[in-house]
Amino acid sequence: MDQLSLQDPLFATYVIAATLMILKAVSMSWLTVVRMMKVKGGFRSPEDIRKTPLNPEPDPKQLEPDEYVERIRRIHMNDLENLPFFLVAGFLYVFTEPPLWLAQVLLYGYVVSRLLHFAAYFTAQTHDTRATLWTVGSLILIFMTCRTLFAALGY
Amino acid sequence: MDQLSLQDPLFATYVIAATLMILKAVSMSWLTVVRMMKVKGGFRSPEDIRKTPLNPEPDPKQLEPDEYVERIRRIHMNDLENLPFFLVAGFLYVFTEPPLWLAQVLLYGYVVSRLLHFAAYFTAQTHDTRATLWTVGSLILIFMTCRTLFAALGY
Amino acid sequence: MDQLSLQDPLFATYVIAATLMILKAVSMSWLTVVRMMKVKGGFRSPEDIRKTPLNPEPDPKQLEPDEYVERIRRIHMNDLENLPFFLVAGFLYVFTEPPLWLAQVLLYGYVVSRLLHFAAYFTAQTHDTRATLWTVGSLILIFMTCRTLFAALGY
Repeated sequence: MDQLSLQDPLFATYVIAATLMILKAVSMSWLTVVRMMKVKGGFRSPEDIRKTPLNPEPDPKQLEPDEYVERIRRIHMNDLENLPFFLVAGFLYVFTEPPLWLAQVLLYGYVVSRLLHFAAYFTAQTHDTRATLWTVGSLILIFMTCRTLFAALGY
Repeated sequence: MDQLSLQDPLFATYVIAATLMILKAVSMSWLTVVRMMKVKGGFRSPEDIRKTPLNPEPDPKQLEPDEYVERIRRIHMNDLENLPFFLVAGFLYVFTEPPLWLAQVLLYGYVVSRLLHFAAYFTAQTHDTRATLWTVGSLILIFMTCRTLFAALGY
Repeated sequence: MDQLSLQDPLFATYVIAATLMILKAVSMSWLTVVRMMKVKGGFRSPEDIRKTPLNPEPDPKQLEPDEYVERIRRIHMNDLENLPFFLVAGFLYVFTEPPLWLAQVLLYGYVVSRLLHFAAYFTAQTHDTRATLWTVGSLILIFMTCRTLFAALGY
């Protein structure tokens, strides 16, 4: 393929999808922080219940799991199980030189599936909804990875 | 080095190892799903015990940790601690232009060490066996990373 | 941009930062091992309390969480939430062809922020200190990712 360049529509498609997913994952960290500050709890380390400017009235209960915070941690964990692999798989898929429309369907489709998965998890939709949305993204990931593997093997 | 290309044997070696490891990690997600459906438990979110077509007879016990499921989650976690770093380290190692045979030994050796680690963990071999297999992969990862660091520093 | 090469100062800057961060993450695994061996506990799998050469006097208490070990696991988890995304974001940021000094400030600044974050977490500094150091790294990551996204979108 030609040199990797942000001017190349195929590589740019990957970069847009990848950076959106990175921002998505980073947002989970910030959302965890926001919720911990809101409930003043859901902390994890013993030193977090020391008296500080940000925690003027510490309480041992602040170290107990708080479902309002834990929900974001579970969403975050789901990101960690999926996004790093998508970031690499999508990059390597570019080297198979797929048609641009197909790369856009797969890469942007993945982004959309993850944003909907977030919406479903965040609003506590039933497990079936969440699982269906996760499955869409996972199948896209598996497809891109297998396609790349076969291409590298010479098929 | 020449342009990255799937026709380049060195880059193709990396891509084959990387895609196999991505598929390995994704399989852990699916294996978790399979086991959760088999024991109808090991769920994690409060909404997972709502009555749905996939969970017609919900029970609060479904939210308790289930060792049959937790084993896969621990294996998965071990993947998350290792594979994303391998995926990047292996890619950057390609730029040091190692001899093909050495890259094959390291990259495929890593893949084999992780598959054996999975087999040992999955079948609950003793900690010593599992730790030995993990160590092989970790040392390969450290070697490739240090080699790349020194090359980037100009040594 | 020109071809990716370790002789290119911009790419070499990224590779140095990336490999240091990979070694940092891998060190957390080894540090967990060291601490588990020191306290002979903090294990996680039922098979870890079988009698073996490395564990001659097993005890069910060895499966209980041990704060001395858990601290490293929390630091490690924080790495998993941050470093894989930094590794990809930093790589893609190179394609925006930033001035070398800026790339050095951002990439090495990130490395320093994470090493200080480790020092603060390791020595159980107050949450405010740790959070401030994490924030520096997170803002660098967000900046690089947004810059890359806009560049890929043609701005």
